[in-house]
Amino acid sequence: MKAFMDQDFLLSNDTAKKLYHDFAAKMPIIDYHCHINPKEIALDRKFDNITQVWLGGDHYKWRQMRSNGVDEYYITGGASDREKFQKWAETLPKAIGNPLYHWSHLELQRYFDFHKPLNGDTAEEAWQVCNAKLAQADMSVRNLIRRSNVTVICTTDDPIDTLEWHDAIANDDTFEVKVLPAWRPDKAMNIEKPDFTDYIAKLADVSGVSIASFEDLKKALRVRLDYFASKGCCVSDHALNYVMYAPASAEEIEAIFAKRLAGGAVTEQEELQFKTAFMLFVGKEYHRLDWAMQLHYGCKRDNNSLMYNKLGPDTGFDCINNYAPSSQMADFLNALIETDELPRTILYSLNPYDNAAIGTILGCFQDSSAIGKIQQGSAWWFNDHKTGMIDQMTSLANLGLLGNFIGMLTDSRSFLSYTRHEYFRRIMCNLIGEWVENGEYPYDEKILKEIVEGISYKNTLRYFPQFS
Amino acid sequence: MKAFMDQDFLLSNDTAKKLYHDFAAKMPIIDYHCHINPKEIALDRKFDNITQVWLGGDHYKWRQMRSNGVDEYYITGGASDREKFQKWAETLPKAIGNPLYHWSHLELQRYFDFHKPLNGDTAEEAWQVCNAKLAQADMSVRNLIRRSNVTVICTTDDPIDTLEWHDAIANDDTFEVKVLPAWRPDKAMNIEKPDFTDYIAKLADVSGVSIASFEDLKKALRVRLDYFASKGCCVSDHALNYVMYAPASAEEIEAIFAKRLAGGAVTEQEELQFKTAFMLFVGKEYHRLDWAMQLHYGCKRDNNSLMYNKLGPDTGFDCINNYAPSSQMADFLNALIETDELPRTILYSLNPYDNAAIGTILGCFQDSSAIGKIQQGSAWWFNDHKTGMIDQMTSLANLGLLGNFIGMLTDSRSFLSYTRHEYFRRIMCNLIGEWVENGEYPYDEKILKEIVEGISYKNTLRYFPQFS
Amino acid sequence: MKAFMDQDFLLSNDTAKKLYHDFAAKMPIIDYHCHINPKEIALDRKFDNITQVWLGGDHYKWRQMRSNGVDEYYITGGASDREKFQKWAETLPKAIGNPLYHWSHLELQRYFDFHKPLNGDTAEEAWQVCNAKLAQADMSVRNLIRRSNVTVICTTDDPIDTLEWHDAIANDDTFEVKVLPAWRPDKAMNIEKPDFTDYIAKLADVSGVSIASFEDLKKALRVRLDYFASKGCCVSDHALNYVMYAPASAEEIEAIFAKRLAGGAVTEQEELQFKTAFMLFVGKEYHRLDWAMQLHYGCKRDNNSLMYNKLGPDTGFDCINNYAPSSQMADFLNALIETDELPRTILYSLNPYDNAAIGTILGCFQDSSAIGKIQQGSAWWFNDHKTGMIDQMTSLANLGLLGNFIGMLTDSRSFLSYTRHEYFRRIMCNLIGEWVENGEYPYDEKILKEIVEGISYKNTLRYFPQFS
Repeated sequence: MKAFMDQDFLLSNDTAKKLYHDFAAKMPIIDYHCHINPKEIALDRKFDNITQVWLGGDHYKWRQMRSNGVDEYYITGGASDREKFQKWAETLPKAIGNPLYHWSHLELQRYFDFHKPLNGDTAEEAWQVCNAKLAQADMSVRNLIRRSNVTVICTTDDPIDTLEWHDAIANDDTFEVKVLPAWRPDKAMNIEKPDFTDYIAKLADVSGVSIASFEDLKKALRVRLDYFASKGCCVSDHALNYVMYAPASAEEIEAIFAKRLAGGAVTEQEELQFKTAFMLFVGKEYHRLDWAMQLHYGCKRDNNSLMYNKLGPDTGFDCINNYAPSSQMADFLNALIETDELPRTILYSLNPYDNAAIGTILGCFQDSSAIGKIQQGSAWWFNDHKTGMIDQMTSLANLGLLGNFIGMLTDSRSFLSYTRHEYFRRIMCNLIGEWVENGEYPYDEKILKEIVEGISYKNTLRYFPQFS
Repeated sequence: MKAFMDQDFLLSNDTAKKLYHDFAAKMPIIDYHCHINPKEIALDRKFDNITQVWLGGDHYKWRQMRSNGVDEYYITGGASDREKFQKWAETLPKAIGNPLYHWSHLELQRYFDFHKPLNGDTAEEAWQVCNAKLAQADMSVRNLIRRSNVTVICTTDDPIDTLEWHDAIANDDTFEVKVLPAWRPDKAMNIEKPDFTDYIAKLADVSGVSIASFEDLKKALRVRLDYFASKGCCVSDHALNYVMYAPASAEEIEAIFAKRLAGGAVTEQEELQFKTAFMLFVGKEYHRLDWAMQLHYGCKRDNNSLMYNKLGPDTGFDCINNYAPSSQMADFLNALIETDELPRTILYSLNPYDNAAIGTILGCFQDSSAIGKIQQGSAWWFNDHKTGMIDQMTSLANLGLLGNFIGMLTDSRSFLSYTRHEYFRRIMCNLIGEWVENGEYPYDEKILKEIVEGISYKNTLRYFPQFS
Repeated sequence: MKAFMDQDFLLSNDTAKKLYHDFAAKMPIIDYHCHINPKEIALDRKFDNITQVWLGGDHYKWRQMRSNGVDEYYITGGASDREKFQKWAETLPKAIGNPLYHWSHLELQRYFDFHKPLNGDTAEEAWQVCNAKLAQADMSVRNLIRRSNVTVICTTDDPIDTLEWHDAIANDDTFEVKVLPAWRPDKAMNIEKPDFTDYIAKLADVSGVSIASFEDLKKALRVRLDYFASKGCCVSDHALNYVMYAPASAEEIEAIFAKRLAGGAVTEQEELQFKTAFMLFVGKEYHRLDWAMQLHYGCKRDNNSLMYNKLGPDTGFDCINNYAPSSQMADFLNALIETDELPRTILYSLNPYDNAAIGTILGCFQDSSAIGKIQQGSAWWFNDHKTGMIDQMTSLANLGLLGNFIGMLTDSRSFLSYTRHEYFRRIMCNLIGEWVENGEYPYDEKILKEIVEGISYKNTLRYFPQFS
């Protein structure tokens, strides 16, 4: 029996161990997609206790506590931080096989030097150890980033954001890590939402462009795109139910937009047409700016209205939407390549059974303008676990060139989540190690080093020229 | 090479062996969903020969015989029982990798002490051995149940059923196992079926409520729900093409129902609206009665009309329906939780590629009213095999708390199928054993015992308070 | 560590090794579905260099080169054959885990006796070795086929094809391998295509039947079906977006066809109705002729219009179409079995997540007219890799009788692709070997030999009586 989560965690053979320890573990981290708050970096926040870090906003953990029948009082309610930690510690052993089990213990080991399994019995000891550590200077946000060997972070930002905290960080010579904004214009696209017109008004205000038409909206967005670019932004992000393709004429789009601006409701078909037009516009803008386009799709959000009314969005009530026609995604990408304006693109579906379709769509749009121009993003959100990662990488390998994969990102709100890169790299090295040990790929150290360092770090650096 | 199906069948490591033999194997069986005929228990039926037991109604086996080119004469036709057994024995070796191969041999070993592989050459010997055993007293239906360490059985019953055989069993002091009815009101929901109005008439008759409106139908059903509850029923079951959500006003539903009662045909949309209204009604009733709601979906039945005309339903001509929008299932559950009337719910899809969507939907509706309130049911029907079970449990572990899983049920018409619980428990222990041996979960005997006993038996006992 | 791709490549245990070397490897090859050009066999073509063989038309390889950022000049453009080979060799190491990595090295080993890993550094040596071999007499097309122990080849042919090269081969006593046409009438079905009416005119010409109605079209097709049958054809092939079922009356079909013949456009619904009628017609014809029907579905083709305009079809821009309702496929097959006119049928989906649905549909339509009458075809195109094959065979085993599987086909345009049969057989033997070694199936040499030889060769021979 292997020891519990020791230095060779998830490494089942000698090649895997060598690849991980000698190559992967030494690579820095580029976290090109996360939900970290730049203000906390700017102010170099510190945390009072482990509940603040772990349970303050992590709806992954909240879900599991609810699955364990824990009362909401101990999750998002008025219980003390110590009580909440206890409930989490008591839930964790039931999460056998869940990535939270591994992530939590990796974080305890790497950041708190706590090596016991966490459960109801060890909770008090863990509470003491973690909180004592959190009081130390090296546990500030900036030091956590430094200790994790992170060189670039891309946050997630709305077009109307001032980016003031990004400025503050950039202007602070004492912090050497690149913290760049990423462009997420969902609110400007979601024409069906009640607050759409309010948002458009704000966007007009921030951009200085009065918006009376879709052409105006594009102008205003272009102002903000250029502003973001001036702040180092080089990657966008979109949350889509699915990647739709419902083309319409410029006149039709203007009519839909005008109706909505006037307070009218749009039909489902009009919504799809507007969103298609919006996505085609921004896609071409990303090509102009040499940004990468991230499309995250396959999610249905806020499914529990009882809890939504109490807690709002991003509180642990989202699920997979299994409707995502691959034909529309292919047609959308084709509409961009027709005029040779398809930017570098990263596709993520929340439905793991989209892996194969994505893997075959990638291959239709690759060209010599970038190595691995169209990517399937690393196993996302609900799929961010051992089997999800193995499935995604195996699918990628089966259908394309795994050697060009740009690898992991945290997608996280927490400064302890960099251990997910370690988790990913161990799994990746083990997968490759197994192939080599099984005679399916030659043991050529030079080539294997290149592949492993590439997927861990160097491919990402090459993929985003702006990071160098 | 491991010996063929010996005591360590499917147990590949020491932890798995310990977990299975010391903990799982000792647990009783709760079979909370099956299709056993209560009359056979009441009368303590005995069987003349192994063909009666195995091939009398088991369409799983019939399908495989047809796949082997066996003439229908030897399957459901006029051939002798001995001839039919021979054809099955000759088919079985081709079923390499199929769960029927394992189930058949587990049954031969456990109930008949026959340990050779069954094939055309060993068929005569098996026939003699099995039939001799079947003549013994300990092979009556009640004794098979006792020998299998079963403590609770839930059958599957129509709302208009008298439940007389359940009464007979309950009133018989010589039989200690709980045999409870389960509520399956498909016929009251399937408004599109030709015999719907006939069924409604029967329901009116049995309930003593004349049914002229949907409100009346609800009244009649409430009468029968209460009657079932009085007989110990605490779980429902539904066979759905998919979990639909097409809300409509009370007036619209009444109009649809009135039209159908008057002999008219309903449109596809009206059918979905009626079924949605029906499911919302019964869902809330289950909440009122503290029953669990089972939703089985993703099946398309009776696909071969040539054979349907000869043999009728449930004869081996069903397949997976791969249309099952997760968004509608989420919306349906939300419609129940909106008023806090969502009962404990168990979801099963016939399509294994729904695992991930189900696993994420569960997490949206959990709360402190029960531990593991919303469950994904054990790998169902066509998925009830080694890979299906591993996939379902791995998915559950990845997305939720495997430790709270309520585990296996037979879904069977046979009194020998309790070996499927053994099959499941071996696979479950092996899965957990592999994680422990691989350093992914600590070897903590107390916690592992709790998890294994929980999934084998204790979680189910807790989930259905009525079983204690 | 196992040596790289040695004689026990992919064979991880003793049973697997025995099954492969003693049984599977000795079986001849029937390649019942490929895209080889019969003219090249008739003329016994030879190749000047390895780039001609490997990169002349193999869009699998082209895709990967594009994924590696290689300029089109080195793929389908004006670069020299030596330059193109270099770019491919430099791409290949990135294809870790990809079947092309294995196929390429199997071909290098088996046909060129070259045993080093191919990469940028070894490209020159490989180039010299391969080209020297290609100059030898035993590397002509016919000798490649003979060396590969192939006994039957079915090409892919249009109804209007003269089959003159098949005649030439059949009339040549010096070549003993059966090379038979296969019937692929896609162009006669694709009523929505711009060149449909041109094609109908050609078909009228070739068949000698003037075509003014759908009835006429059927007459013309019947002429050509009988002609193909007279040339030994016994298998058809269809490329479908999905297996649709949109029934319509004979009058409606005639009206749709008449409108289209007159130059009109058909609606999407009319297209589906026409295609349904077409497929029902040919399905019944296959039954009359005792042919097998192959349905390949789940593909969306020519997705990159920029490249399509430059290179045309079949150049590496196809992807999975994930819309394929299993209910329509079941209804289509049922419409044929209703009148007992369902031919032997082989189903292939490009979407691997259709495996389970297909596996359950098979079981609905089996009967005693053939052993394993309805088959799921071997993992197709994008799924033709180790995990794809394991998944397809595991699914088949879970849901039906793996022992009756008719196994592998190349689906290839290349005469070196017969190594894919070796690849398949190794994976199949390893899968079965693992089950045996794990005690899940008894080690009975007679039965295992029968299963392995069956899946490798003998089941196919039995399935197509015309091959004997």
